[in-house]
Amino acid sequence: MSNLIKNVLLNNIGQDIFIQDGFIRSIGENLNIVADKILDGTNKAVIPSFVNAHTHSAMTLMRSYADDMHLHNWLENKIWPFEKNITEEDVYWGTRLAIIEMIKSGTTHFNDMYWHYNGTARAVMDSGIHANLSSAFIDLGNEETSKTQIAEQIEIFNNRHEYSSNVTFTLGIHALYTVSESGVLWARDFAKEHNLKIHMHLSETQREVDEWVEQTGMRPVDYLDSIGLLGPNILAAHVNWVSEDEIKRLADHNVGIIHCPTSNMKLASGVFPYQRMKDAGLRIGLATDGVASNNNVDMLGEMKMAALLQKSNNQDPTVMPAGEAFYLATEGSASLFDLNMGTIAIGKSADLLLVDLKNIHLIPNHHLIPNLVYSAHSDCIDTTISRGNILMKNGIVDDEEYVIEHFQNAVESLVGNYSKHSFNRK
Amino acid sequence: MSNLIKNVLLNNIGQDIFIQDGFIRSIGENLNIVADKILDGTNKAVIPSFVNAHTHSAMTLMRSYADDMHLHNWLENKIWPFEKNITEEDVYWGTRLAIIEMIKSGTTHFNDMYWHYNGTARAVMDSGIHANLSSAFIDLGNEETSKTQIAEQIEIFNNRHEYSSNVTFTLGIHALYTVSESGVLWARDFAKEHNLKIHMHLSETQREVDEWVEQTGMRPVDYLDSIGLLGPNILAAHVNWVSEDEIKRLADHNVGIIHCPTSNMKLASGVFPYQRMKDAGLRIGLATDGVASNNNVDMLGEMKMAALLQKSNNQDPTVMPAGEAFYLATEGSASLFDLNMGTIAIGKSADLLLVDLKNIHLIPNHHLIPNLVYSAHSDCIDTTISRGNILMKNGIVDDEEYVIEHFQNAVESLVGNYSKHSFNRK
Repeated sequence: MSNLIKNVLLNNIGQDIFIQDGFIRSIGENLNIVADKILDGTNKAVIPSFVNAHTHSAMTLMRSYADDMHLHNWLENKIWPFEKNITEEDVYWGTRLAIIEMIKSGTTHFNDMYWHYNGTARAVMDSGIHANLSSAFIDLGNEETSKTQIAEQIEIFNNRHEYSSNVTFTLGIHALYTVSESGVLWARDFAKEHNLKIHMHLSETQREVDEWVEQTGMRPVDYLDSIGLLGPNILAAHVNWVSEDEIKRLADHNVGIIHCPTSNMKLASGVFPYQRMKDAGLRIGLATDGVASNNNVDMLGEMKMAALLQKSNNQDPTVMPAGEAFYLATEGSASLFDLNMGTIAIGKSADLLLVDLKNIHLIPNHHLIPNLVYSAHSDCIDTTISRGNILMKNGIVDDEEYVIEHFQNAVESLVGNYSKHSFNRK
Repeated sequence: MSNLIKNVLLNNIGQDIFIQDGFIRSIGENLNIVADKILDGTNKAVIPSFVNAHTHSAMTLMRSYADDMHLHNWLENKIWPFEKNITEEDVYWGTRLAIIEMIKSGTTHFNDMYWHYNGTARAVMDSGIHANLSSAFIDLGNEETSKTQIAEQIEIFNNRHEYSSNVTFTLGIHALYTVSESGVLWARDFAKEHNLKIHMHLSETQREVDEWVEQTGMRPVDYLDSIGLLGPNILAAHVNWVSEDEIKRLADHNVGIIHCPTSNMKLASGVFPYQRMKDAGLRIGLATDGVASNNNVDMLGEMKMAALLQKSNNQDPTVMPAGEAFYLATEGSASLFDLNMGTIAIGKSADLLLVDLKNIHLIPNHHLIPNLVYSAHSDCIDTTISRGNILMKNGIVDDEEYVIEHFQNAVESLVGNYSKHSFNRK
């Protein structure tokens, strides 16, 4: 399977890009190559697609369900009770809906943690996108739950080759405050034994840190260091409440950090210390978190939010310029998962977007990257290509209506009084 | 001219809305009324259109031209030099482009301040939207400039009836730091004499306030009070750096306040004291500011930014819940300009939006207002109605391509090395 993108804006000149078997093979002006499919890039720019580094995709089911609440109240009284009733089928349709939103807003890889692993994995395979997936390991200190969940993780790990190469198994630890110490130690050992990445929430709120200090006498990062869990395979989401010493410790162990600006702002969890993290040389990616706390899985919006939050919070408009926000959403996030994507070059995975330069939000286009970061909306993306496969063309994802219909049925079965279009005429 | 919207979601039930001569005349289930035009509201919700309370519309010409800079450096070295070359024709096309972005994102009224008043006014009239317009009164202390600009304002005021009723003349004072004292006093007296609103920037940055205190011994609001300028006709944009006493004083005089969250964050100007302003009983509206500092004129994005900024800054996710952000963008902003819009009721101006509930960003729709504030993108808006006139239907604004073509020509003539689509094959 080969594609030739003709006359698309790349590095400020019109070029052609030849894609074969999922990889970029040639780039140049007027390439004289025969391809199975030709894409006209006129009036379009090509950019790498986005990597959404921390999601709970099936939480689309809860979009607009519970907003404007304190994090722990929100989790305990709205999110977790809702999740008790969710089936694998719900997760499948919830994730498929999220993936359609991702494809339409330019994401082709995401890093997810959620219940019913199999539902999420099936949704990834059926959508043509790719992902790192971990199950939601939360035992709340209960030994029985812990055993069941560990058994579940081992089972998924053992069966991982039954999924396509688009699904990469990752070990999940929800957070220190939701997983028993024995569970965390098990995860540490299992990950080391099988060279797995560990995806976890870390130091998201001040309360979480304070309670951990009270309980253990140690700050969370110090604790993780003390049990030998820090390392380049650790992918920690949020990481808002860390001391200078903890930042240094995270950097010494080359931990991967995932920033979720919208979710942090909406839940008032804290402000990510971006400049200090960057200065410490930490690898940083960008993510939306789940739509229950965003309420989108749109990396264009996330870049704007990230840049604006840092400028405002540091009282300095030069902090996180557009290029850095764009880097976080592409190369930064991609590097956390060792993905061969995030830039456009020969040999790279063909994970690409064609951006419509005639879209009103991008006119005029004095500079493309600031335009993408500060002005682009998802409807600026015309074409989404994932490992050489065209998942969207002219803004159209083929199975959108089909997925929406099934998703609405799933929501309806979960929420008794919910009507698919939110009203009935009768 | 009459329109009948059939079976649209309003207050959680499917209803019909009858519009005649620009006003809402009837609302109810299954209205039995003959109308010139029928709009099918199935799978759509109806909401009031937005009022963008502070813009410099023609600054679309500078979208992505200069980002990530300090405000005063940005103004003095990028924005003002660029503006020196702008003609009335450029302003006309710049404003027309902005208005297309506004129509597509649901705004039907805006409050603008810019050079070449006539260009902006013509763009408003040709677009079918409505606006309060003020010219940019900036004399930088130069007496000659001041005289010329005062003469210009008087001339526009005297000719105001030559514009359609969609254009409302408003007096502009750019800011205390850019207008001579004699100019400010003239504006005060002229506004009083003719019962005009005054549109101005106020206490946007800390530097501006500090310099004013150094120069006059008074904080800006105290100064305005001392010269008798405070009152309900004053519409002050930004207002980030105000003391408790100044907030009380603004409230005592019932001054109208305009909040521009994205612009404030991007330029790191300061954080708007929303909760204190609200508690003081101040009238507050919401605005995007110009696209050189936003970089959109999209009130959907602005609502999300406003709510998230307040939650994050106050470390409290319950501050500015979705309903309040929506209020600011509709009733809050509308009230500043004494507009008969911002809610949907019989006798109100028919400034309405039909929202597409089948858009991926709005699915599921557990609650409409949080969905609009936290999740909706401009492509969720299907139909935009301004004073009963349908300016967009099915997401299409008729003259979009025509305006883009002329706008690109204007940009090209302003920026020598700019190519319309940002690249040349040659």
